[in-house]
Amino acid sequence: MGKVICVGLGPGNPDLMSVKADRLVRSAAHVAYFRKAGWDGQARKIVNGMLAERAIEYPMEYPVTTEIPVTDPEYNRVMAAFYDDWADRLAALAETETVLVLCEGDPFFYGSFMHLYTRLRARSAVEVVPGITGMSGCWTATGEPITWGDDVLTVVTATMEEGELTRRIRDTDALVVMKIGRNLEKLKRALTAAGRMETAWLVERGTMPDQRVHRLSEAPAKVPYFSIAVVHGQGRRP
Amino acid sequence: MGKVICVGLGPGNPDLMSVKADRLVRSAAHVAYFRKAGWDGQARKIVNGMLAERAIEYPMEYPVTTEIPVTDPEYNRVMAAFYDDWADRLAALAETETVLVLCEGDPFFYGSFMHLYTRLRARSAVEVVPGITGMSGCWTATGEPITWGDDVLTVVTATMEEGELTRRIRDTDALVVMKIGRNLEKLKRALTAAGRMETAWLVERGTMPDQRVHRLSEAPAKVPYFSIAVVHGQGRRP
Repeated sequence: MGKVICVGLGPGNPDLMSVKADRLVRSAAHVAYFRKAGWDGQARKIVNGMLAERAIEYPMEYPVTTEIPVTDPEYNRVMAAFYDDWADRLAALAETETVLVLCEGDPFFYGSFMHLYTRLRARSAVEVVPGITGMSGCWTATGEPITWGDDVLTVVTATMEEGELTRRIRDTDALVVMKIGRNLEKLKRALTAAGRMETAWLVERGTMPDQRVHRLSEAPAKVPYFSIAVVHGQGRRP
Repeated sequence: MGKVICVGLGPGNPDLMSVKADRLVRSAAHVAYFRKAGWDGQARKIVNGMLAERAIEYPMEYPVTTEIPVTDPEYNRVMAAFYDDWADRLAALAETETVLVLCEGDPFFYGSFMHLYTRLRARSAVEVVPGITGMSGCWTATGEPITWGDDVLTVVTATMEEGELTRRIRDTDALVVMKIGRNLEKLKRALTAAGRMETAWLVERGTMPDQRVHRLSEAPAKVPYFSIAVVHGQGRRP
C-alpha cells in the first residue's frame, strides 16, 4: 500500500526547504510536478541536483495556462479533465508506490495540488507537508516586517476587478498581492487610488538567485509570474 | 566582525524547520530567545536536543505579558526598555560573535524579533531567515486547502473590537485568526454574527505532538496561546 505525499518546497531557495521536504525529495522513487508545456517548471527547478538517480519523473503539463480566460467554461472543462486524468494516474501508482508531488511554496495556499487532493483523498492515502510561502520569502527580501501588533493582513490576487481591489487595499494595514503578471498596470492604479503606491514594494523571484526588489513605482513594465507585491503594516511597536 | 541572525523555526515540529535553520541551530555558539519568565519558551522547546553542547544561551524574558493591557502607556514603556536593553546586549556581542535569535513561525510575521530588528539594523549586521508560519501549519492540520483560485485571505487578531472583527469576517473568503487566548468568546460571537461559525476550525499547537483540531463550535472554553482559527475559502476549483 503506497501513498501520495505533496511536499511544499518553499519560496525557491532549496536551503529554505524543510528538513522533511529535503529528506523526502532526496529519497523519492516517483516524483510528479506541474509545469507549463515546454518549460522546466518552478517546482522541478527548485530540486535540481537533489533527485535520486533512479527516480522516475512525472511532469504534469497544464493543457492551458493563459490561452483561455479562467471565466470561460472551456477553461474549467479542460482543466477538470486534466486533473481527473492525473488523479487517476497517481491513484493507480499509489496502490503500490509512494509518489511525491512537488509544489512550490505551501501546497494549501493557492497551490495546484489542491485540485488533485480533492480528487484523490477518497481513494488514496494522501499527506501534505507545509512549506514556507512565496510571500514570506518576498516580505523577508524587502528587509521590513510585514505585520506588527494587531495589524490586519489582506492577501489578494491582482486578477480582481479594479474597484474592488482598490477598496481592499484601502481597508487593510498590511497587503500582499499575488498573481500580478498582466495585471501590473491595474494594480498600480488601484494602489495609487488607495494612497498606498509610495509604500508598495515589488519582489521578483523572492529568495532565488536572480531575486529583485523594487519600489513598486520603479518596477519594470513586465514582471515575471513569480512576483509578489507587498505593503507593510505600521502597527504597534514599543 | 560578527552578526545577528534571526531564524524562523516554523510552526513547531522540528522536521518543518528549514534546512538552513537546522544547520544554523546545530552550529550556533550563542543562542538567544524570548520567553515568559518561569517558562521554557516555545522557540527554545522547538530546538530541544539540537543545540551544541558548548552553546551559550541568552533567554530574553518578557518583563510583562498580559499583566498590563497593551493600550496602557506603561506597557509600552516597559517593553521599549526591555527591547532597548537586549538590542544593546546583542549589538555588543555581535561586534565579535555570531548570535542566533530563535523565533517560532516566521520572524517578520507578528514576531517579537521585529522590535530588536528595528533597534539593531543601524549598528549591527542582521540577517533574517523566513520560516513556515504557524498558520500554514494549522491550515495544513485541518486537511483542507485555505485559498483557491482568486480567494481573498484576511489575517486578523482576535484582540480586535467585536464589531470590526465581525465586519472583517463577513468581508473575506478565507480567514485566519491569531492571538485568540482570552478572546475566544468574542471570536465565537463575531463568527456567528457573520454567518461563518459552522465552517470555522480551531487548531491548538498545530504540527506539535499534542496538536488538536476542532470545529470551532466544539472547541474547549480555554485554549492555549498557540491556537489559530481558520475558515477556508471556497473559490474556483475546476
